[in-house]
Amino acid sequence: MSAIFSITARDAHSRARCGVVTTAHGPVETPVFMPVGTRGTVKALTPHELRDHGAQIILGNTYHLYLQPGHELIARRGGLHRFSAWDGPILTDSGGFQVFSLVYGGIADEIKGRRPEHPARMGDMVKVTEDAVIFKSYLDGSRHIFTPERSIEVQHSLGADIILCFDELPPFRAGYDYTHESMGRSHRWAARCLAAHRKRDPGPLPNPDQFLFGIVHGGVFPDLRQTSAETISAMGFDGLCIGGSLGADKAQMYAVVDMTVPHMPDGMARHLLGIGDVDDLLEGVARGIDMFDCVSPTRLGRHGTALVRDQGRRWKLHVSNASLREDDGPLQAGCTCYACRHYSRAYIHYLYRAKEILGLRLVSLHNVAFLLALMADVRAAITAGRFAELYAAWLGRPLAV
Amino acid sequence: MSAIFSITARDAHSRARCGVVTTAHGPVETPVFMPVGTRGTVKALTPHELRDHGAQIILGNTYHLYLQPGHELIARRGGLHRFSAWDGPILTDSGGFQVFSLVYGGIADEIKGRRPEHPARMGDMVKVTEDAVIFKSYLDGSRHIFTPERSIEVQHSLGADIILCFDELPPFRAGYDYTHESMGRSHRWAARCLAAHRKRDPGPLPNPDQFLFGIVHGGVFPDLRQTSAETISAMGFDGLCIGGSLGADKAQMYAVVDMTVPHMPDGMARHLLGIGDVDDLLEGVARGIDMFDCVSPTRLGRHGTALVRDQGRRWKLHVSNASLREDDGPLQAGCTCYACRHYSRAYIHYLYRAKEILGLRLVSLHNVAFLLALMADVRAAITAGRFAELYAAWLGRPLAV
Repeated sequence: MSAIFSITARDAHSRARCGVVTTAHGPVETPVFMPVGTRGTVKALTPHELRDHGAQIILGNTYHLYLQPGHELIARRGGLHRFSAWDGPILTDSGGFQVFSLVYGGIADEIKGRRPEHPARMGDMVKVTEDAVIFKSYLDGSRHIFTPERSIEVQHSLGADIILCFDELPPFRAGYDYTHESMGRSHRWAARCLAAHRKRDPGPLPNPDQFLFGIVHGGVFPDLRQTSAETISAMGFDGLCIGGSLGADKAQMYAVVDMTVPHMPDGMARHLLGIGDVDDLLEGVARGIDMFDCVSPTRLGRHGTALVRDQGRRWKLHVSNASLREDDGPLQAGCTCYACRHYSRAYIHYLYRAKEILGLRLVSLHNVAFLLALMADVRAAITAGRFAELYAAWLGRPLAV
Repeated sequence: MSAIFSITARDAHSRARCGVVTTAHGPVETPVFMPVGTRGTVKALTPHELRDHGAQIILGNTYHLYLQPGHELIARRGGLHRFSAWDGPILTDSGGFQVFSLVYGGIADEIKGRRPEHPARMGDMVKVTEDAVIFKSYLDGSRHIFTPERSIEVQHSLGADIILCFDELPPFRAGYDYTHESMGRSHRWAARCLAAHRKRDPGPLPNPDQFLFGIVHGGVFPDLRQTSAETISAMGFDGLCIGGSLGADKAQMYAVVDMTVPHMPDGMARHLLGIGDVDDLLEGVARGIDMFDCVSPTRLGRHGTALVRDQGRRWKLHVSNASLREDDGPLQAGCTCYACRHYSRAYIHYLYRAKEILGLRLVSLHNVAFLLALMADVRAAITAGRFAELYAAWLGRPLAV
């Protein structure tokens, strides 16, 4: 059991639990959704807006920050917290996800199995060896090498409170044999990451108190997930992630979580990487997940889609829809975010149609606030013993996991 | 003398004065710079940010709002204040400026004399008759007719606290004869605007307490400026603007102001339309101007130029300049705006290079705050009898007007 995580409440009808992750930049109450600030900024929003709307922790992407402006420059500025003016907890990923996402085109599609073929151009953009991943920059095509040690070194320079192991993302269609082989390599890389992290010299680092989380692999295969969960759990990490391919659809993703969580120690925090749909958050919590991250609220916001409490719409409202043209209500009745307190759907609809920046800004903020409020409700419900009611109210079906 | 404006202090060495314009949505301390919210939003910023940084009044553009989303829709929403969540004073222009700016390509260049030829395509896009201006929409090419009465009707629907007369913008190169002819027409239109305004039914309007300002024309010709100032001043408007061509360069613009202001009543507020450079604000105040507006702070912000106290740079700092890459200072030392309180030049430089929306947002906010702070300093200096010192400190030359 890791010292950084303590469980404060449990749901009687599922694996849902509340806890606190204690970091050098403050506590994080779980289950938590973390907005993603890929390049040192949650797109279009300030850290103060995020804090005011309940954000506890932000995720930054090591791959992007390594390429631009460079981790050494950020370290010289005092680390990512000071550089980006967010003084709360930060988690950085290892860079592995983005290295491979270039190859797959859209990693989310690949992880979720929606791309039919293994991309032909993989060899051009990325090469995986036992030692390292060689890849080309998305910015200028320049050639870079990431090793497990290099990823940890970069993350030490960025100074996030929680950092992740460097791993390989095998494509969903890779099949059992490649997934097995890749998992073994990611396990060996995990040991190298842990060794590199333990032998760091904390003196010159912007944040000497970083926690390292391991990543469980194994794709959609129950025996591999079990092996990986047991192997990674035993290595001495400060917390655990569920990574790799999560299947072809939501049902398979839930199945992957179900085949993995029982093999993870109860007392370690569990992060389901890259997931943030409303139903996935609730299903993940019910299955024992503590931490989530996803770019979706800000990406949807930029594309004019607001999150709303309407399961029939898959919780999505397209703000450019003509039906909103004279709608004086807020994006979501009862929402206390800045956008909903001050603006009508009609105004936001108009801003989008007019391509005004304030439009995407307001919807991005609303969407982030919407998921943060959902997770606050989830924590309160678990603590009060009524998570099943909350689950049923949102999803329109009884909690049964 | 208009009841809406009262003078509270005068400078002993120039025509500079302080005053208060009292509107239905609160007082405006002058001299004032008003940020421009062309389409119902000061680009990328919220009204609450503007208020927090000292904005007192915002300008909206009738032409744009008439075309999209339409003034009637805005009236049904309760007017522009409620629609855009800005509860302070608003000024709308008449639409004339933008109708002609389409023809001239960039109206600012034309007004300032930088375009050599009268555009050949004028006849395609806009036609001026004694009664009206017929123009094509910049959005879809659809044909529209603006009369003085129509402009006032549209501005009544928008509900700004201060509205402007509909006028013709003759091109700088039009010469004496056309400028004279156009001035006469604008004077006749001014009388029609006043009549339309006086016979309004305030009952159904979002803001029954609107003030109408007249616009002084006459181009760069002293006798025409005098005639226009005297004519418009005598008509019974609530305040006055200096419009039309302001000459080929800054020296000529100052000369136009100097040949106009002495013929305007001391007790009426004076607005110099569309001007907002640091030196122009100080020179305008010294010449007796009370109100200014300009898109420049947000336009510069979107294009990566920050306003700074550096006359040698023409008060402009290009934030993408490589020299800022590791600059840990704020955009402007001593600036108390949100961007300068929290972010380094290095971070903002990086955001621009990475094309992150937060970058243009922060610089837009800084630039607006910079001009608002300058004008607050100007008011304090006039009141304290040290405007000449402030002028000299900013412009590096003694006050002599």
